[in-house]
Amino acid sequence: MNRKLRMGMVGGGKDAFIGAIHRIAANMDGLIELSCGALSINPDVAKESGKMLFLPEDRTYLTFEEMITKESQLPADKRIDFVTIVTPNFAHFAPAMMALDNGFNVVIEKPIAFTLDEALQLKQKVAETGLTLCLTHTYSGYPMVKQARAMFADGVFGKIRKVWVEYPQGWLSKLSEREGNAQAAWRTDPKKSGKSGCMGDIGTHAAHLAEYITGLKITQLCADLSILVDGRALDDDGNVLLKFENGAAGCLMASQVAAGEENALKIRVYGEKGGVEWAQHEPNTLLVKWLDAPTQILRAGGNYGDRLSTYATHNCRTPGGHPEGYLEAFGNIYRNFALTLGAKISGETPTKEMLDFPGVEDGIRGMAFIDNVVTSAQSTEKWTAHIVNN
Amino acid sequence: MNRKLRMGMVGGGKDAFIGAIHRIAANMDGLIELSCGALSINPDVAKESGKMLFLPEDRTYLTFEEMITKESQLPADKRIDFVTIVTPNFAHFAPAMMALDNGFNVVIEKPIAFTLDEALQLKQKVAETGLTLCLTHTYSGYPMVKQARAMFADGVFGKIRKVWVEYPQGWLSKLSEREGNAQAAWRTDPKKSGKSGCMGDIGTHAAHLAEYITGLKITQLCADLSILVDGRALDDDGNVLLKFENGAAGCLMASQVAAGEENALKIRVYGEKGGVEWAQHEPNTLLVKWLDAPTQILRAGGNYGDRLSTYATHNCRTPGGHPEGYLEAFGNIYRNFALTLGAKISGETPTKEMLDFPGVEDGIRGMAFIDNVVTSAQSTEKWTAHIVNN
Amino acid sequence: MNRKLRMGMVGGGKDAFIGAIHRIAANMDGLIELSCGALSINPDVAKESGKMLFLPEDRTYLTFEEMITKESQLPADKRIDFVTIVTPNFAHFAPAMMALDNGFNVVIEKPIAFTLDEALQLKQKVAETGLTLCLTHTYSGYPMVKQARAMFADGVFGKIRKVWVEYPQGWLSKLSEREGNAQAAWRTDPKKSGKSGCMGDIGTHAAHLAEYITGLKITQLCADLSILVDGRALDDDGNVLLKFENGAAGCLMASQVAAGEENALKIRVYGEKGGVEWAQHEPNTLLVKWLDAPTQILRAGGNYGDRLSTYATHNCRTPGGHPEGYLEAFGNIYRNFALTLGAKISGETPTKEMLDFPGVEDGIRGMAFIDNVVTSAQSTEKWTAHIVNN
Amino acid sequence: MNRKLRMGMVGGGKDAFIGAIHRIAANMDGLIELSCGALSINPDVAKESGKMLFLPEDRTYLTFEEMITKESQLPADKRIDFVTIVTPNFAHFAPAMMALDNGFNVVIEKPIAFTLDEALQLKQKVAETGLTLCLTHTYSGYPMVKQARAMFADGVFGKIRKVWVEYPQGWLSKLSEREGNAQAAWRTDPKKSGKSGCMGDIGTHAAHLAEYITGLKITQLCADLSILVDGRALDDDGNVLLKFENGAAGCLMASQVAAGEENALKIRVYGEKGGVEWAQHEPNTLLVKWLDAPTQILRAGGNYGDRLSTYATHNCRTPGGHPEGYLEAFGNIYRNFALTLGAKISGETPTKEMLDFPGVEDGIRGMAFIDNVVTSAQSTEKWTAHIVNN
Repeated sequence: MNRKLRMGMVGGGKDAFIGAIHRIAANMDGLIELSCGALSINPDVAKESGKMLFLPEDRTYLTFEEMITKESQLPADKRIDFVTIVTPNFAHFAPAMMALDNGFNVVIEKPIAFTLDEALQLKQKVAETGLTLCLTHTYSGYPMVKQARAMFADGVFGKIRKVWVEYPQGWLSKLSEREGNAQAAWRTDPKKSGKSGCMGDIGTHAAHLAEYITGLKITQLCADLSILVDGRALDDDGNVLLKFENGAAGCLMASQVAAGEENALKIRVYGEKGGVEWAQHEPNTLLVKWLDAPTQILRAGGNYGDRLSTYATHNCRTPGGHPEGYLEAFGNIYRNFALTLGAKISGETPTKEMLDFPGVEDGIRGMAFIDNVVTSAQSTEKWTAHIVNN
Repeated sequence: MNRKLRMGMVGGGKDAFIGAIHRIAANMDGLIELSCGALSINPDVAKESGKMLFLPEDRTYLTFEEMITKESQLPADKRIDFVTIVTPNFAHFAPAMMALDNGFNVVIEKPIAFTLDEALQLKQKVAETGLTLCLTHTYSGYPMVKQARAMFADGVFGKIRKVWVEYPQGWLSKLSEREGNAQAAWRTDPKKSGKSGCMGDIGTHAAHLAEYITGLKITQLCADLSILVDGRALDDDGNVLLKFENGAAGCLMASQVAAGEENALKIRVYGEKGGVEWAQHEPNTLLVKWLDAPTQILRAGGNYGDRLSTYATHNCRTPGGHPEGYLEAFGNIYRNFALTLGAKISGETPTKEMLDFPGVEDGIRGMAFIDNVVTSAQSTEKWTAHIVNN
Repeated sequence: MNRKLRMGMVGGGKDAFIGAIHRIAANMDGLIELSCGALSINPDVAKESGKMLFLPEDRTYLTFEEMITKESQLPADKRIDFVTIVTPNFAHFAPAMMALDNGFNVVIEKPIAFTLDEALQLKQKVAETGLTLCLTHTYSGYPMVKQARAMFADGVFGKIRKVWVEYPQGWLSKLSEREGNAQAAWRTDPKKSGKSGCMGDIGTHAAHLAEYITGLKITQLCADLSILVDGRALDDDGNVLLKFENGAAGCLMASQVAAGEENALKIRVYGEKGGVEWAQHEPNTLLVKWLDAPTQILRAGGNYGDRLSTYATHNCRTPGGHPEGYLEAFGNIYRNFALTLGAKISGETPTKEMLDFPGVEDGIRGMAFIDNVVTSAQSTEKWTAHIVNN
Repeated sequence: MNRKLRMGMVGGGKDAFIGAIHRIAANMDGLIELSCGALSINPDVAKESGKMLFLPEDRTYLTFEEMITKESQLPADKRIDFVTIVTPNFAHFAPAMMALDNGFNVVIEKPIAFTLDEALQLKQKVAETGLTLCLTHTYSGYPMVKQARAMFADGVFGKIRKVWVEYPQGWLSKLSEREGNAQAAWRTDPKKSGKSGCMGDIGTHAAHLAEYITGLKITQLCADLSILVDGRALDDDGNVLLKFENGAAGCLMASQVAAGEENALKIRVYGEKGGVEWAQHEPNTLLVKWLDAPTQILRAGGNYGDRLSTYATHNCRTPGGHPEGYLEAFGNIYRNFALTLGAKISGETPTKEMLDFPGVEDGIRGMAFIDNVVTSAQSTEKWTAHIVNN
């Protein structure tokens, strides 16, 4: 790529959580600059936030419609290259569609949309326009997650037999949504979050991670969703039995009421000859287990010759021993998206490592997962097919 | 107690795994002596094993019937106090019944019997005879497991909401039963092991641990059992959704084909205010998690005044920093059984801490768990009641 | 602050290690933009690197002298605010002095200079100009390091008695400097690195960390420096006994030949009532130990009310459970430097948390440490005073 | 061996710490029976302790002199095979000499004696009598410590360059010796403990471990010993620089005032190609580090074919995943001593694995270490030779 890409942000005003994360992720590698924003539906917040981010006043917009319209009218060497959407779930679809319709590439915070139907419309629009849509399933941005995926893809462990993925959080152990916690309020509100709470918010991350690492699709599921804090409208906890397309058995557990847990995403996958264990808590480590040999501690940036996949090394910024974390994983998604877009703009071909970021298909899988998990939870049948209904 | 107790062992000849463990556990605290044995159904092995254990020839028996008969005829100050049964599952019931019938107390390796019906007969016999039956669910012997149980019993964490228990092993990742592995052979053989493999062998341990720590009964379950190694007759893997009597949600995972895992039993239980995490890998540590405060590392033998329950401190042999392990946990079961029996013999009242070892009721729960898990696995209904059918 | 700060970089061309780190650190928070650079003494590399970083050609300079001279002539709203110096040690002083002389603030990679004398000259220049000099002792940028410092400063643990700090690396276990490793080449060369190898490169980090966390000065030291790989000119390993000003005992260990270690910086400090343990390997955790109570796991971003110091919370970008790492710690130094400079520019007063970044005094301590450690290593006397000789 | 060995214990009455540990260690494997004891210098305690241990009254002695004299007069098939001495340091020598003089083998808790001179006399007596003396340097009994030793002996890592051993405890952080803590009282009393406190008590363990694993002698040392709790007569903390016979550099740190630490013995040894890390906290794990390959987690009882040394496998009682701890390590010393003695009695040759327990030479090294460390601490010279002065 031969210039920085220009980004316009929808949502992410001051005090928003995920917007700030997206900005750091986009800033980190010097490939992207924040050029404009429609940072809040509250005009005062929008303006104040724009000022704090050193945006020019004339590119601090009050609505996404205004932003997309006005940016479209700017000359090519000034207007944004892509729109990043960091609003609550119910407000993903409209700006995404409008952006695509106006020729802008799109980054969307997951889940991709409010309903599966919206996701399918986005897929069609992406296909029509040839634009790039990136979905920030952060955890697939970690180098050692990519290493795990590469090892299974290379058949290092033989046929996959067993998958355990878990995502315990504790932050919704009280009815915080009624105590002024804005994050809790929208995430537990079916009108803003969608038909699932815990499963939509973090279960989708776990399911994505399982499919990403194994390279296998989940084909059947059996879900037990619970509301463990009285007075809540959406599930705050769930356990799901899984079947994978190759016959592997699995289990996915997610909770937002595991009091005392932070963000303890962890996955274990076992094949015939060994397996892997990865946990976000210490993301630079991949435990590699063997049937007949000692467990190995693979480290991001490790000095092992070519033992690490190019997918892992491409996504490290430092040599071993310099812990990289969540922001770098997030940054990897932005970086790969930017490198891909930059290559396209320069007429170059992006490498396979650059192209390795989540997109619209991942978004559809996620929306279908939410639908199917909720269907299963309401059923007395043991198994529900995990297919994309439309 | 005012003398050592005398033990006779059924099974446990040389090369047996669990028999050797029982002997170390029984020896450790100097409360029990091995007085006789019917150590193998192979007479040569029985004799050779007796010699290796320094047993007198006249108390090295060739069958459990001979042992129980002849020991019954010895004078009271010479004959054994109890029989310990360490044979494969199918050979638990007969010696246990005969021992009880002849006035001997009994220790049995888990599962208590081959079928639930046998277990119920043992319960009745124990009730009739007033003798003591101890079941070696080892993991409930760890001090920090007892600490966890005590904290939930004391209401420290409020109402329990969520239970995750997992027990991954990898040792059956190949068809070792066909390669001369005697342990693998009987454990994967329905005629010797029972109607379940993995769930009977280790799933029962996980279920016992969950009920022991929480003090709650599992009331419903939804099981997915798999045979992941082709050619095997019994399940070698399973995931089970759980409902507890108070409404808590749970998940139990066990596998013997998690290649590269040793014996990675782990449990996490969360209540309204916090929760605990315990793993056999580092058994002297109990992580205590809090909704609004830092996680604490509680250590067996820790110098914390009265923060540790008497149930924990009674079961530690050393101050903090001297790691105790599996053999000590096993030894705690023997020690508490011996202290209880010794107290009875001396006409004293055992303390509540001494009485805290698994018995016939735990055995019945275990057999019912096996039955109900297998029933659920064969059902298309989501939930199966976990009750004791008889 | 009301605008982004403009940075000019000296050194850090493509393939340099630390220059890339500085750029990520500076980019991350959107407070600084890279405006120009003299990125290499090799003109081709300088130009190519400028292009890769999207610098305008007219601000891609070939020498630091050119850069400082030309930037000085730019209008105030265009010229850089500060110079960042990421060259090898021997080339820190000249650009730093010239920058200060021309009214530019300065960031320098540690150690501050090649000799103590240079460091003292820089101190005087800073005093004369009133400009700000920031020294990137990265490890003091970690939130949980700041938490530890704050706890000792608040007297939480009583009088400090004992300090253990260690920094094992393995990357110089072979004579890599003769195998084309450019990093190894200059760092093991007395003409480029200075009078110490391992102690200058990483021992100074360890010493800084110890003084930073304890708030105490090291007053005496007894060093054993070794060259453990034959053929090397500078120490690649050292152990140093320490005495602190309050009488506390300490030990500092550093090695670059601990084969298999990455960057395993770790510190433990004990007071009368408890102590702390922090390791870069898992930097978001601070173990807090107590004489009579369980160890606590303090986590960056933890939800503990006001248990975390404002020095820690000010330096976290995410809530607990989103691991931040080395780049964020580095970024904290740039962020605090930028916030301080931005406040000055806006006529505001920086907060105490903003002002908490290493500067010229830390640089002088570091150069004196190198001198005194080398003196001690050559002496047969046990103790050498750790004072600033000039 | 063809019978259990008979043990007589000196010291170890009720409430003693280490006596109880020795009994468990001796009981565990069913190779040794406690036959008699002189358990306390307080006659009431001696009698009561004998009763609690189910000793016959006529073999519950009141003094070690009485015990040794009377046992000598018993017939060969009844009298003890060895005396185990678990008194405070000042009371090791007399019973040990008398036992040897009367033809009894001896086990002694470390340090072997009160002075080096006593240790040298014991050596001569052992040589004269041909009896066996075992010294319970517990930590050398851990299987993974033996594995480490075997790997260095086999040259797996090339020449050893660097040794770090540390032993932090916190239990003497207060003047507990004045608050009725009997353990603290004698261990901090020069008349009972000897000329060093911390270094004698735990520094000797660390030094033994370092020499045991490396197979190298420490030849020079530079010690800084401190009394960090006011009012104490003996060192409660120390840091020692080390030189090994092959030129390797080392550092030994021990403290009894590291508030909040339990018994955190840890050692790291690095050679040219890699190294090991072992910590008592999780003793079944040996981290094996490599210059150019991922760290391996070697586990006691691991299923790795012949990757584990026979020295390790001989000292495991269980397969991998059944944590063994301090008592088993202690038990290994007793077991190997018993197997060696049993072999001698049966006229067999003990294997090299059986013979691998500490003895009188280790005791002499330990006493010399105490002497030389104290000499060094009082010297203004940097280095003191670590030789056996007599």
